[in-house]
Amino acid sequence: MPIDPTAVGATGGPVERQWTSKDTLLYALGVGAGVDELQFTTEKNQQVLPTFAVIVGGGGAPMNKIGSFNPAMLVHGEQAIELEGPIPAEGRVKTSGRIAGIYDKGKGAVIVTESESVDAETGAPRFRTRSSVFIRGEGGFGGERGPSSAGDGPPDRAPDHECRYATRPDQALLYRLSGDRNPLHSDPEFARRGGFDRPILHGLCTYGFTGRALLHTLCGGDPTRFRSMAGRFSKPVLPGQELTVRMWVDGQSARFQTCVEGVPVIDQGRFTFA
Amino acid sequence: MPIDPTAVGATGGPVERQWTSKDTLLYALGVGAGVDELQFTTEKNQQVLPTFAVIVGGGGAPMNKIGSFNPAMLVHGEQAIELEGPIPAEGRVKTSGRIAGIYDKGKGAVIVTESESVDAETGAPRFRTRSSVFIRGEGGFGGERGPSSAGDGPPDRAPDHECRYATRPDQALLYRLSGDRNPLHSDPEFARRGGFDRPILHGLCTYGFTGRALLHTLCGGDPTRFRSMAGRFSKPVLPGQELTVRMWVDGQSARFQTCVEGVPVIDQGRFTFA
Repeated sequence: MPIDPTAVGATGGPVERQWTSKDTLLYALGVGAGVDELQFTTEKNQQVLPTFAVIVGGGGAPMNKIGSFNPAMLVHGEQAIELEGPIPAEGRVKTSGRIAGIYDKGKGAVIVTESESVDAETGAPRFRTRSSVFIRGEGGFGGERGPSSAGDGPPDRAPDHECRYATRPDQALLYRLSGDRNPLHSDPEFARRGGFDRPILHGLCTYGFTGRALLHTLCGGDPTRFRSMAGRFSKPVLPGQELTVRMWVDGQSARFQTCVEGVPVIDQGRFTFA
Repeated sequence: MPIDPTAVGATGGPVERQWTSKDTLLYALGVGAGVDELQFTTEKNQQVLPTFAVIVGGGGAPMNKIGSFNPAMLVHGEQAIELEGPIPAEGRVKTSGRIAGIYDKGKGAVIVTESESVDAETGAPRFRTRSSVFIRGEGGFGGERGPSSAGDGPPDRAPDHECRYATRPDQALLYRLSGDRNPLHSDPEFARRGGFDRPILHGLCTYGFTGRALLHTLCGGDPTRFRSMAGRFSKPVLPGQELTVRMWVDGQSARFQTCVEGVPVIDQGRFTFA
């Protein structure tokens, strides 16, 4: 059954999710926080990395309405988060989702979903996420081509800040315990069948490292100042590679790019902060 | 209220505990398994490190019967495990415990507990653990001094095998998510109050690294061949230090010693295997 472009606008949820301090601590370790960031990696005056929103803030969109496809062909395209405030160490949210776009790129299909999470107790808004995936081989169903994501590169000047983080060879093994156990990130045989020499890092793990870099460089490490972050996954990262996050600041917003050996792995990055 | 030596022989439990593959994978990462041990760190044909028994196999002994003491004064003395077979990736056990010994060492009290776990579904024996703790400042209650633990050193010859593992600066932050969140292992201020320059590694984390070394060196990595392991914690380890596990083999048993810079941190080690 091909992709059905009439599913655009379909809504679903709310789905309920809860998390404990173990989940938020495990996430922090999974995206590289360690002994220099005890406020994120231990429960003493614990704070939560804002990018944890991608773990508990997605979903709710009725993916069953877009038709069937092989999940092994799915790659993450873009990811945006927007926060209403700091995320508590433990909490519970209700998330409603929506299929926001379905585009026919010829070689594949792009599916854009949006989710909105409110505190399950009080109903207060917590965070919004927007995610696009590219499904290889599922193009040609006759849908709109959609907006081009090319072009909007970083300013033509040296970055205002650069932040480097090493990832570890076993980074994906740890990150995946936060929920995404796709064997593409852990099973060498599976990764080879997918065309990779070895398992690749989760795009959202790179996203988490990048969020830490933005938080520490532009917000003084204070999650209450972190507003929104969006970027496009442009190239796979291998566990063990070093990430360099480049930032160009303009008032309360910044562009960013995350690179491995000078090549962007997240590009078209946009960040806002207070 | 001082330590009450008449509590010896008191039994408790059964307490029930269950675990999932997330728990066993997290434990494996916590004791240093990584991309070279995917059978322990991913769910594909997953096996479980035998030392996971210390996580789910203790408890049940009625500690409330021995009197009150300050838990910050407690240090782990000895730890033994004995397995009836490989531990499943997910499972549920019922554990009964017993206070096996209370000794008055003058400067402190030694409490020995034993626990026995059976499969919660079938009642089949799974593992037994024996643990002793030293409680500083709680001696002088007039109990027996108990057996001396000095003397029984390794053979007077070069070890038959040596296995080296690095620990990481954030090792304790990861290991503690398996359950023991004592701030002595994570909070620099708390550790200083306890007389340490910085947080120390969990003894049971060092124990897990040591078990991996024994498993890979003497059992060809096969958990079904791992029978029992016992050792005494003789010196704290700091996260980031390198562990060297020395083994002296005698048929189906071995003595071992785990050292940091040549100094034993686990001594009087005994291991049996098939």
